[in-house]
Amino acid sequence: MTATEQPFDADTPPARPLTITELAELAGVSTATVSKVVNGRSEVAPETRALVEGLIRRHGYRRQRRRVSPAALVEVVIHALGGDYPVEIIKGVGQVARQHNLAVVISDAPDRETPGRGWIEGVLSRRPSGVIGVFSGLTDDQREQLVTRDIPIVLVDPSGDPGPGFPSVGAGNWSGGLSATRHLLDLGHRRIAIITGPDWALPSRARLDGYRTALDLAGVAADPELIGSGDFLIEGGRAQAHRLLRLPKPPTAIFACNDGQATGVYRAAHELGLRIPHDLSVVGFDDLPSVEWMNPPLTTVRQPLCEMAVAATGMLMKLVGGEPLPQSRVELGTDLIIRGSTARPAH
Amino acid sequence: MTATEQPFDADTPPARPLTITELAELAGVSTATVSKVVNGRSEVAPETRALVEGLIRRHGYRRQRRRVSPAALVEVVIHALGGDYPVEIIKGVGQVARQHNLAVVISDAPDRETPGRGWIEGVLSRRPSGVIGVFSGLTDDQREQLVTRDIPIVLVDPSGDPGPGFPSVGAGNWSGGLSATRHLLDLGHRRIAIITGPDWALPSRARLDGYRTALDLAGVAADPELIGSGDFLIEGGRAQAHRLLRLPKPPTAIFACNDGQATGVYRAAHELGLRIPHDLSVVGFDDLPSVEWMNPPLTTVRQPLCEMAVAATGMLMKLVGGEPLPQSRVELGTDLIIRGSTARPAH
Repeated sequence: MTATEQPFDADTPPARPLTITELAELAGVSTATVSKVVNGRSEVAPETRALVEGLIRRHGYRRQRRRVSPAALVEVVIHALGGDYPVEIIKGVGQVARQHNLAVVISDAPDRETPGRGWIEGVLSRRPSGVIGVFSGLTDDQREQLVTRDIPIVLVDPSGDPGPGFPSVGAGNWSGGLSATRHLLDLGHRRIAIITGPDWALPSRARLDGYRTALDLAGVAADPELIGSGDFLIEGGRAQAHRLLRLPKPPTAIFACNDGQATGVYRAAHELGLRIPHDLSVVGFDDLPSVEWMNPPLTTVRQPLCEMAVAATGMLMKLVGGEPLPQSRVELGTDLIIRGSTARPAH
Repeated sequence: MTATEQPFDADTPPARPLTITELAELAGVSTATVSKVVNGRSEVAPETRALVEGLIRRHGYRRQRRRVSPAALVEVVIHALGGDYPVEIIKGVGQVARQHNLAVVISDAPDRETPGRGWIEGVLSRRPSGVIGVFSGLTDDQREQLVTRDIPIVLVDPSGDPGPGFPSVGAGNWSGGLSATRHLLDLGHRRIAIITGPDWALPSRARLDGYRTALDLAGVAADPELIGSGDFLIEGGRAQAHRLLRLPKPPTAIFACNDGQATGVYRAAHELGLRIPHDLSVVGFDDLPSVEWMNPPLTTVRQPLCEMAVAATGMLMKLVGGEPLPQSRVELGTDLIIRGSTARPAH
């Protein structure tokens, strides 16, 4: 009798993770059903799936004998595809995946916070070698489902807190906010506005804190009226810029917190007949390839998205190979790229 | 004795396609080697690979007994990733693939004309259900390699002539060129320049022909000086715009043939201190999501890239299911989207 075949008593769960046979016995379903749940197949009633997932969560799950080898795929799960942000990530993942003879699968997750439910079943059924996630974080359930199937995941630019020890790659958001604001202060601006991302997005909070600290170090009082709450989208940037530029004492410079919102600020300035940088200085964040072609070219904080994806995929390959990570959180530096959208204030 | 086991005489090749065993006998190599070539594995000497591929091309290849089932993947092979053009295609493919429970793999091909050699081995080893190609066309060898492995392919917006009967989806390029130029004529422009794509790109040739016909129908003589040869890239558009706008008799309007080149025209106008549309009208082609945010918003010919990818993937699913295609070439219509970059000429 081998270890996997030893008799199992439902009343005294053993400390070691359970096999499919043991889970089936405990749940009172067939091994085929447990296998379907484990492999993310769809033909299982939701209640049965929940029952089996619950048991896996409680007791753990361990593959029987032959280890199923993963498919030669890396899966990139990304919030709503659009613009060149995702392209930069896909390029970086592709560079590393190619070296490991892995193909890159793209899944479009419905929103940026956490990917939808359908997503995880897709991943389980495809059984990729690993997952690169571009979203806030995983629910505990989703995390457990990946862990029990030995599918590692690394997050890139997570908008939330992925939790301690969760592997992720971000950028120096606070330093970026600091250097963007310092650049404007150095040019002589004193009424400097900021348009933030959503409140729950930690990269936005870090950029805002960098902005506040730069003002404070320069002895400039932060004016709450000059802090606009955006959503990281073009339209939000445009709406906030309209509000700011119509204040009795409008700002002479706006730090837009991402390139999309800077695009919205350009539109608002165009609509109001203001010239950039003569009447208004603008700084973005990201340095997407397209912003070099805005007129004037956008001064922005470069967040090295492609290199971040390269670093994340390198970490993922270590995890796939069973190697420990020297550190679970990696932050790459940001650089201020000065172009034509910033100048001394006119008055 | 079954059909696959019948004796085989190397001097009189049979009319039916050969099995791996027969190909191995004929080539004087092991069946394992033939199998590696058929499955796109890398550990085969180039000469041996060429020998086996040559025999497959001459005699055909037929799977022995058990049919290998394809992976639940659609592979998108695309020229250098960048900007939002590929994102539109990936979105469209994803919409249809999801309905068929297929994941989308992205491969980055080195150039737009024909994807590089390494690409095809990747596809053969992954054995996707089908391929969506965004490039000019396949070499005869590549085509044969996919046909013998039962991997169907459909091209989207091919820049070359894919050959008769090759499944592809394009747009009404000629009509788009015609309507762009007519719009400028209707506004009163007579000195209308065009910046074309590369000479070998058929979509560009069709747009140029539409431009010529519109001028001809309006009784306006085409001035060869006003035809600029571009490359479909931003920099090319900018360089040609500088040349055109410095002519003794500069154009009052430019049809830029794609949105990238229109972006280059905007930059040139900005550099020369010209206002769009007051001093210069500009029309693009594609209607990528970002051009709505150019200042002023770009008037352009909408090429429905996402819908084209949806149509191509629908055709691919038919081919995967063994259904015949009602037509191998599908063209979707283009629409002129009038925004703020076109107006009556000032003088």
